[in-house]
Amino acid sequence: MIRFDISGGADFFSAGGPDYAAAAAAHRLLATGTGAGSEFTGWTYLPRRMAESGELKHVLAAARTIRSQGKVLLVVGAGGSYLGARAAIELLRTPSHNLFPGETEVYFLGNSLSPDSINELCFLLGDKDFSVNVISKSGDTLESALGFRIAKSLLERKYGRNTAKRRIYVTTDANEGMLRDYALAEGYEMFPMPDGVGGRFSVLSAVGLLPMAAAGIDVDKVVSSADGALRDLSLQSPENPAWQYAAARQNLYRQGRTIEILACYEPSFRFMAEWWKQLFGGSEGKNGIGIFPAGAEYNADLHSMGQYIQDGPRTLMETVVRFATPRTSCKVPFEMGDPDKLNYLAGREFAEIQEIAANAVREAHLAGGVPNLSVTVDCRDEKGFAELVCFFEVSCAISAYMTGVNPFDQPGAEAYRKNMFRRLKAE
Amino acid sequence: MIRFDISGGADFFSAGGPDYAAAAAAHRLLATGTGAGSEFTGWTYLPRRMAESGELKHVLAAARTIRSQGKVLLVVGAGGSYLGARAAIELLRTPSHNLFPGETEVYFLGNSLSPDSINELCFLLGDKDFSVNVISKSGDTLESALGFRIAKSLLERKYGRNTAKRRIYVTTDANEGMLRDYALAEGYEMFPMPDGVGGRFSVLSAVGLLPMAAAGIDVDKVVSSADGALRDLSLQSPENPAWQYAAARQNLYRQGRTIEILACYEPSFRFMAEWWKQLFGGSEGKNGIGIFPAGAEYNADLHSMGQYIQDGPRTLMETVVRFATPRTSCKVPFEMGDPDKLNYLAGREFAEIQEIAANAVREAHLAGGVPNLSVTVDCRDEKGFAELVCFFEVSCAISAYMTGVNPFDQPGAEAYRKNMFRRLKAE
Repeated sequence: MIRFDISGGADFFSAGGPDYAAAAAAHRLLATGTGAGSEFTGWTYLPRRMAESGELKHVLAAARTIRSQGKVLLVVGAGGSYLGARAAIELLRTPSHNLFPGETEVYFLGNSLSPDSINELCFLLGDKDFSVNVISKSGDTLESALGFRIAKSLLERKYGRNTAKRRIYVTTDANEGMLRDYALAEGYEMFPMPDGVGGRFSVLSAVGLLPMAAAGIDVDKVVSSADGALRDLSLQSPENPAWQYAAARQNLYRQGRTIEILACYEPSFRFMAEWWKQLFGGSEGKNGIGIFPAGAEYNADLHSMGQYIQDGPRTLMETVVRFATPRTSCKVPFEMGDPDKLNYLAGREFAEIQEIAANAVREAHLAGGVPNLSVTVDCRDEKGFAELVCFFEVSCAISAYMTGVNPFDQPGAEAYRKNMFRRLKAE
Repeated sequence: MIRFDISGGADFFSAGGPDYAAAAAAHRLLATGTGAGSEFTGWTYLPRRMAESGELKHVLAAARTIRSQGKVLLVVGAGGSYLGARAAIELLRTPSHNLFPGETEVYFLGNSLSPDSINELCFLLGDKDFSVNVISKSGDTLESALGFRIAKSLLERKYGRNTAKRRIYVTTDANEGMLRDYALAEGYEMFPMPDGVGGRFSVLSAVGLLPMAAAGIDVDKVVSSADGALRDLSLQSPENPAWQYAAARQNLYRQGRTIEILACYEPSFRFMAEWWKQLFGGSEGKNGIGIFPAGAEYNADLHSMGQYIQDGPRTLMETVVRFATPRTSCKVPFEMGDPDKLNYLAGREFAEIQEIAANAVREAHLAGGVPNLSVTVDCRDEKGFAELVCFFEVSCAISAYMTGVNPFDQPGAEAYRKNMFRRLKAE
């Protein structure tokens, strides 16, 4: 179960504390589909739908085929069609996933226009057998459309046009769009991007699950855990950790905490923080308001941003993601002569020392005037991942509704695209 | 040469514009060693000293030995003893450096207490021959001291105690400290951390150069380019790009731009942004003031943070790092039937499209009320890296002096350490 600890906010809340009545009202908008953008709340029952519709089975079958087709899956997608899968693979496997022998390597293309990145990827592919999963709602995102041109030309050069077709997996809108038409015309295997699920809420659809399954993640467990978590998070009560998180951060925002740092002590969490930044930044940053989302990797970043957090402007709040049970064991070695004066730690578990460090950081930051919230799940595994995803999605919708914005649109993200296409056509 | 473009700040500056008189005064404090923390300005002549003292030659010779000793260098360091080398290797080689055959792989240890990370590293080392470079000013940083215990025990298990000694390279204080005593007693090869250079300004000493050289980076070129850049940046004039950057960002800060996003269109820049965050966050975030430093990878993050940047609170400024000359060529493939309607781009260079995208983003963000500054160097190579490092270091010192703080201390970073050691000894 997800546990949220609000106690490190206590000294910083306004009189009366977090506004649970407002959280309740916001949650009601979400649950009854009466809030702005309610046509995009399909993610609230997505796991169940994935299981019941047979889509999950389809994903599992395709992942098996992909794994049998070669050593590499090339995922072509941008934004919400990229971050979720990358975050999951880094968290549940490792950021060095592609260095591990025996697993299907996963590379990402189509989120950058850098020629150096593309050339590097071609080099890393080498002569390995590979398949391609292109992910785009409409097909008109420039970065991923160009990425797919590259991927397809690599495939066709290697396998010829007809065989290449059997190595292309398309995740796109079920009913319309350029990529859908393209895939139908070519006969590619298709996975629907479910109706009513925006890009940044799509990780538990085929968008995220197919690359995850190809990388060896147990997506059956992810989906069933997510279904359970969403049920828990539907609780209409201040005991609901999503209410607590949403109400706490909004209270702190009103007290001038304009920046939230999401921190974790596991280096493998880096892209989960990126996913979280997209989720909250895209949902809340509009109409001139919104908490600025920033990520941090502890302990590493305590040596970089630690000074700023401790002594800079008191505009920060901090939310720490913790895993209760360590996945592996590692003990401090004994050192003859005790040259570094650390033999008093010899034989102790790193996980235990990490826990002590986390408590020390909390104590220091609280004393320095930084509210410290935390969310804890049991383990860095499929269940923990699913719980974190659902917790952040539900909290995000509630939190955004509490500020009066539509959590599910992104009108501002269009501005550069319009300029870009105008310039590309003109220059 | 470094070019700074201040024009995208013009609409946002206060009347009178950036305060070059204040920048001049701050630069004078730095140049004459009369400002707070002046005993830590050794980095202003570090490249020349590295070349003239023979330390650079020592680094080059050791890197050759390391490369002959095995396939892997394990770098053990935290904070400033970690970020610079990692940033350089990712930028100049690639974030996937360790996947490239034929190069010495570089892994980092000692910046995290995660048992999973440590165990993963041991697995990745496997039975490969390796050496260790431990980097710590004093030796009393917990994360790196424990990391060194792990590294040393791996080495000794593999090679025995005496042979292991010849694979340990120690970068530490030249005159005092626990790690120095340890290294002298054991007879490890030693590299001095130069006097008067704080951790976050140390990348152009052996701290950064030895891992970089081991990874195949031409550190001779880095050092000579840095020497030239520092000479250019000593110019006492508003033409100095470091004055422009420091004065522009301080002006914008006073207008309520409390967050600066450092963005780059090259995915390989990610850890340079982390290095920059450490440099500016650690130097400026004190006495309750300081611009909050955040990093972004474009185009990827335009799909995540783009909405917030465009429509969120008008508290952001953006500084974009650009490389004028692309390193490689890659053209958009032609696609029969034009299924994605992008054949009008067929045959065009990705670098050119990337440039158009960058201009489109600048236009959109300016229109949305976000000041857009940029710094351009010629190429993503040793010279460009050295120029960026020197540009940011000089700008940072000037910028911090402009706010009246000591750029070179970090009293706040001690708070959690004190708590941690107290708790570790008690629990």
